Amino acid sequence: MTQPSSPYTYPRIIRWGDCDPAGIAYTPRIFDCLTEALEAWHRDILGVDWLRLRTEMGMGAPIVHAEADMVRPLPPDLVLDIEVRVEEVGTASVTYALSARGPSGDEHFRGRMVACYIDAAAERAAPMPESLRQRLLANSE
Amino acid sequence: MTQPSSPYTYPRIIRWGDCDPAGIAYTPRIFDCLTEALEAWHRDILGVDWLRLRTEMGMGAPIVHAEADMVRPLPPDLVLDIEVRVEEVGTASVTYALSARGPSGDEHFRGRMVACYIDAAAERAAPMPESLRQRLLANSE
Amino acid sequence: MTQPSSPYTYPRIIRWGDCDPAGIAYTPRIFDCLTEALEAWHRDILGVDWLRLRTEMGMGAPIVHAEADMVRPLPPDLVLDIEVRVEEVGTASVTYALSARGPSGDEHFRGRMVACYIDAAAERAAPMPESLRQRLLANSE
Amino acid sequence: MTQPSSPYTYPRIIRWGDCDPAGIAYTPRIFDCLTEALEAWHRDILGVDWLRLRTEMGMGAPIVHAEADMVRPLPPDLVLDIEVRVEEVGTASVTYALSARGPSGDEHFRGRMVACYIDAAAERAAPMPESLRQRLLANSE
Repeated sequence: MTQPSSPYTYPRIIRWGDCDPAGIAYTPRIFDCLTEALEAWHRDILGVDWLRLRTEMGMGAPIVHAEADMVRPLPPDLVLDIEVRVEEVGTASVTYALSARGPSGDEHFRGRMVACYIDAAAERAAPMPESLRQRLLANSE
Repeated sequence: MTQPSSPYTYPRIIRWGDCDPAGIAYTPRIFDCLTEALEAWHRDILGVDWLRLRTEMGMGAPIVHAEADMVRPLPPDLVLDIEVRVEEVGTASVTYALSARGPSGDEHFRGRMVACYIDAAAERAAPMPESLRQRLLANSE
Repeated sequence: MTQPSSPYTYPRIIRWGDCDPAGIAYTPRIFDCLTEALEAWHRDILGVDWLRLRTEMGMGAPIVHAEADMVRPLPPDLVLDIEVRVEEVGTASVTYALSARGPSGDEHFRGRMVACYIDAAAERAAPMPESLRQRLLANSE
Repeated sequence: MTQPSSPYTYPRIIRWGDCDPAGIAYTPRIFDCLTEALEAWHRDILGVDWLRLRTEMGMGAPIVHAEADMVRPLPPDLVLDIEVRVEEVGTASVTYALSARGPSGDEHFRGRMVACYIDAAAERAAPMPESLRQRLLANSE
């Protein structure tokens, strides 16, 4: 587990297949980047991957809101570090803020995603397990 | 060309491969749906596809902001109609509002996207061609 | 159900986001086209979609072999008809041959996929239900 | 550059979004894995990425044949090493053999891809540059 003081970053290279005929990342692929970063954060920082969350804890964490701003071009082979931060922790929801920076430190895109914890069987919002909530709070700002 | 009074809809079925092990559409695939709807609208309503915009008019229309709210589950084989509306037309940008409804008319997700017109060679914001702007205004609310 | 004599075709347009910076479909997207065509065939011709195959019949049909030959360029906006044919029906497996043709009738790519029927719970090969097998044979060559 | 004797491997984790409602990788995503491995090999071993191949050398290397056999299940979070080997070097084409192994060394899928070198402007097969050909031969079996 990292300390809240050292932000978690997920490394991601923009691939040939992420890019469209204009030579820059196709918009939906940016949400692939954001969601991959969140998945890795869940596994590495919360300590539970999305599969075990479902099979062992009987819960899911579907994303109910996602947004992104593209602020600099995203050509093939660009190496990004995507920072994941917990912005807000509710009873059954978490808001994440993400920011992707290139080798020079310039931001290329940023995003925000809201995950809602649900009881996987009932398919209904449900308070997240207290152990997860504590880890979320310990890693929030 | 449709009349502004009859909203444009893009039909889209949620496919097996759009869905993740939780059995619902994986978040980035929702942005695939939104972007596909916008691409079809550009071709069918504006009358110029993204390839010709680039090769014949020397312009691009990258999306600089995208967001979506997922309000109902999206299982495989769900048939959606995605409505595309022009919300705002600027000098070099357009804001679109999109809404995806299932067979019963219930909304499953909605989104908003902002496209910025650029000079493709200079990779810089540029006023959109007047012919496009007129068609955009004629199809806005 | 179509007659075996009139081949089943799945319409598919090559989208902007299917294409890479070289301006043609990125190879994995061709397998998206092939798998989508097979999914539609399963629903339209066999009469059972992959979700119901799993939830109602307790079976799956994972693809154990897939291949494709790309014989003509695949630029954005190309409209294809992908023909799906049953080439061989075994006890627990089916071989499909697919061919994608453009508006002029020219073939742009062709593929072959082998699906293996499994008991979904046991995750083991299992004979397909006799009703499915009869429909497969009725639609094979 | 690695020696031909130490095979090049590309690390790849099977992600949540690679998998379908059956809980295993959706077939086209396996071709994403294979193509990503080939792209990385091109950059790391041949020393020229696909973008520079196009912009600096005026060439492309589209894949004209691709195939894969899925031999073991591919659940989320499975960590794979994908080995890339040059199987055959022609005047204007290269055949690659790829194999993806899990942590225990078991093979989960294998593939074969044929890339054809083309003159990017003429969109026609063309002999690959001699420098590339020498590096390909030095890294073939």
